[in-house]
Amino acid sequence: MSEHTYRVTEIVGTSHEGVDQAIRNGITRASQTLHNLDWFEVTQVRGQIENGRIEHYQVGLKVGFRLDESD
Amino acid sequence: MSEHTYRVTEIVGTSHEGVDQAIRNGITRASQTLHNLDWFEVTQVRGQIENGRIEHYQVGLKVGFRLDESD
Amino acid sequence: MSEHTYRVTEIVGTSHEGVDQAIRNGITRASQTLHNLDWFEVTQVRGQIENGRIEHYQVGLKVGFRLDESD
Amino acid sequence: MSEHTYRVTEIVGTSHEGVDQAIRNGITRASQTLHNLDWFEVTQVRGQIENGRIEHYQVGLKVGFRLDESD
Amino acid sequence: MSEHTYRVTEIVGTSHEGVDQAIRNGITRASQTLHNLDWFEVTQVRGQIENGRIEHYQVGLKVGFRLDESD
Amino acid sequence: MSEHTYRVTEIVGTSHEGVDQAIRNGITRASQTLHNLDWFEVTQVRGQIENGRIEHYQVGLKVGFRLDESD
Amino acid sequence: MSEHTYRVTEIVGTSHEGVDQAIRNGITRASQTLHNLDWFEVTQVRGQIENGRIEHYQVGLKVGFRLDESD
Amino acid sequence: MSEHTYRVTEIVGTSHEGVDQAIRNGITRASQTLHNLDWFEVTQVRGQIENGRIEHYQVGLKVGFRLDESD
Amino acid sequence: MSEHTYRVTEIVGTSHEGVDQAIRNGITRASQTLHNLDWFEVTQVRGQIENGRIEHYQVGLKVGFRLDESD
Amino acid sequence: MSEHTYRVTEIVGTSHEGVDQAIRNGITRASQTLHNLDWFEVTQVRGQIENGRIEHYQVGLKVGFRLDESD
Amino acid sequence: MSEHTYRVTEIVGTSHEGVDQAIRNGITRASQTLHNLDWFEVTQVRGQIENGRIEHYQVGLKVGFRLDESD
Amino acid sequence: MSEHTYRVTEIVGTSHEGVDQAIRNGITRASQTLHNLDWFEVTQVRGQIENGRIEHYQVGLKVGFRLDESD
Repeated sequence: MSEHTYRVTEIVGTSHEGVDQAIRNGITRASQTLHNLDWFEVTQVRGQIENGRIEHYQVGLKVGFRLDESD
Repeated sequence: MSEHTYRVTEIVGTSHEGVDQAIRNGITRASQTLHNLDWFEVTQVRGQIENGRIEHYQVGLKVGFRLDESD
Repeated sequence: MSEHTYRVTEIVGTSHEGVDQAIRNGITRASQTLHNLDWFEVTQVRGQIENGRIEHYQVGLKVGFRLDESD
Repeated sequence: MSEHTYRVTEIVGTSHEGVDQAIRNGITRASQTLHNLDWFEVTQVRGQIENGRIEHYQVGLKVGFRLDESD
Repeated sequence: MSEHTYRVTEIVGTSHEGVDQAIRNGITRASQTLHNLDWFEVTQVRGQIENGRIEHYQVGLKVGFRLDESD
Repeated sequence: MSEHTYRVTEIVGTSHEGVDQAIRNGITRASQTLHNLDWFEVTQVRGQIENGRIEHYQVGLKVGFRLDESD
Repeated sequence: MSEHTYRVTEIVGTSHEGVDQAIRNGITRASQTLHNLDWFEVTQVRGQIENGRIEHYQVGLKVGFRLDESD
Repeated sequence: MSEHTYRVTEIVGTSHEGVDQAIRNGITRASQTLHNLDWFEVTQVRGQIENGRIEHYQVGLKVGFRLDESD
Repeated sequence: MSEHTYRVTEIVGTSHEGVDQAIRNGITRASQTLHNLDWFEVTQVRGQIENGRIEHYQVGLKVGFRLDESD
Repeated sequence: MSEHTYRVTEIVGTSHEGVDQAIRNGITRASQTLHNLDWFEVTQVRGQIENGRIEHYQVGLKVGFRLDESD
Repeated sequence: MSEHTYRVTEIVGTSHEGVDQAIRNGITRASQTLHNLDWFEVTQVRGQIENGRIEHYQVGLKVGFRLDESD
Repeated sequence: MSEHTYRVTEIVGTSHEGVDQAIRNGITRASQTLHNLDWFEVTQVRGQIENGRIEHYQVGLKVGFRLDESD
């Protein structure tokens, strides 16, 4: 295995349902434009409240991906 | 939109089931006495273990709400 | 209640399903070898991605347990 | 001087103009309901952007005040 | 045991004598107005110096208490 | 409102005048190439000194923006 | 002096009396099973409150000890 | 350019007016006794409140300066 | 000197040899696609172990570069 | 009151007895060479262990003092 | 691949030569007693100075290893 | 051994070669003016980049030294 370099990008995934789904939504969206996604790390869990109920979960994520020769 | 001030209060929501439910329980309880709840942020996820099983999830939350003129 | 001392050990629980299940898997495994488990605290939520999907959730946990006289 | 206890409350002051004004707005609002305000500490500087311009500065503040005998 | 919610309030206890006494002074004062105090956590240890001697120890504390049905 | 994903990019805005202007300069520059800018958060305030005077204020900013379908 | 490796273990010492005694209780307990204890570092000071009084001080400690050839 | 060493000193600048002015006051005072000041970094923004108004802004600063051969 | 804006990107450089080489590998790779690289800051040093030996050093880096008029 | 500048210096006070005494020893020593000491803040509590007993408590302190016109 | 649990242990590797060698010494020593070592993370770089020269580099490491069925 | 007080000063050592050499350069320079240097701790690793290559490694160091009776 050669000596790769990785890039780390930061996103916020959101969901009406919960923390896991917000993570999945963010990763799914990121994988539409970024290739070779390798790992993620949760940096923050927040949310919006409306009328005393949670309207959106917002999960901050750092997402790492391997840089290709051509990137 | 005028220049509002917000207050941030810290609570710990608990649940037998998991992290999402502990967040929801805490927000539901806070909304009984605080109006205009606007956002939350998770500060800590802990729990109690009994006989090798998780008895309670305990999720620390900062909850922000808008101050009314009369608060 | 006398003056106990506790030890804190750090583990990483993993799951294909989500954060709550990764916590439970870690605690279940720890309880096979450690007695008197008392509390846990989440230190980190990460995961591995393969082909644009989350392959593993990895949840870092500090787990505290009471030391017996004989430990 | 006797041995006072202080309470610390967390607020978010906002302003269209800038950081200093957001701090002042928050302190002014807090002083309407809290007595004996003694010090503040900035915990966070954020803001909302609309159409490429800053709409609101939002400054998180911890505000300390001395508890009276009767509080 | 049902699923309680806890509130966390932040205070600063002070003492001429030392750290332990400043913690005790803060907890004693808090217990005059808050019920069901359950735990504390030290966030900061500071102090004032006058003429080369410590005039006051100031200990920041987060104090957690269980919310009653009626709170 | 559907479940958007946001990206967070990190910039450093600079100014000869002060902190607020450095924030505004950074946001203005970012808005030339990024659409749907939504919020910012200050991560660091630094500066360069020359001949005992502040030559540049440098303000680190995280800037969040909503990803379009086509980004 | 040769190039030793040290291990760091985390414990929580407790005491009814105060912070210093909780540290001493934890170190005394650790020294029953670990040899060559070399240093400690306080990571956290917490406590339990009952009826408005401190029931237990709980002091988190990292404790370092030198590994023998045979450990 | 040769391999310089820098020293970092910590100061607190104060002002009645605001954050920028407190930074400038601190740097101006530091430059009276320290040569080759090179950069600063804000570590903390606090202030004193009197009668519900901000009496002093207090800005913590790390200030770096190049050591001369003769320092 | 005019008022530039900088962007900060996060990468992970890797090396079989050590920390310095992992930093250099990451910077070299970044400079293939980014112009005007100006500074870096190490955020994390990790590594993979295989058969009791270090297989890869992985060094997290924030890399800052000046935005051109045309970026 | 005019606009003073303060300097913050970092020391480590030590004691055979405990945390409070280590703080006092450090402040007493600092006051021999620094004038106008104004406040301190504890940054770290560590200690050395010998033969399973605490030999020294070591308390890291930031100490602030007002700069005179002539300093 | 099934759902493994990992344990994280903390060590301090030392060396007369430098940071990389201190990491290698710590990992080599840990691999004598722990199996399935998987990754490390540097938590701290310190050292001892004698007569104005570095006598020892001391590198804090968290080391993760996979728990076997029989551990 | 009596109860010494230590002072901690912060420096930045630099090198064209790498991290270890930057640490050594900083310690060597500090030992020209400070006696009884006892330990160091790395606080930050940064560097300057020119034309896509690392021009300087800059390593932040806290350096502790024992205060003599006469200091």
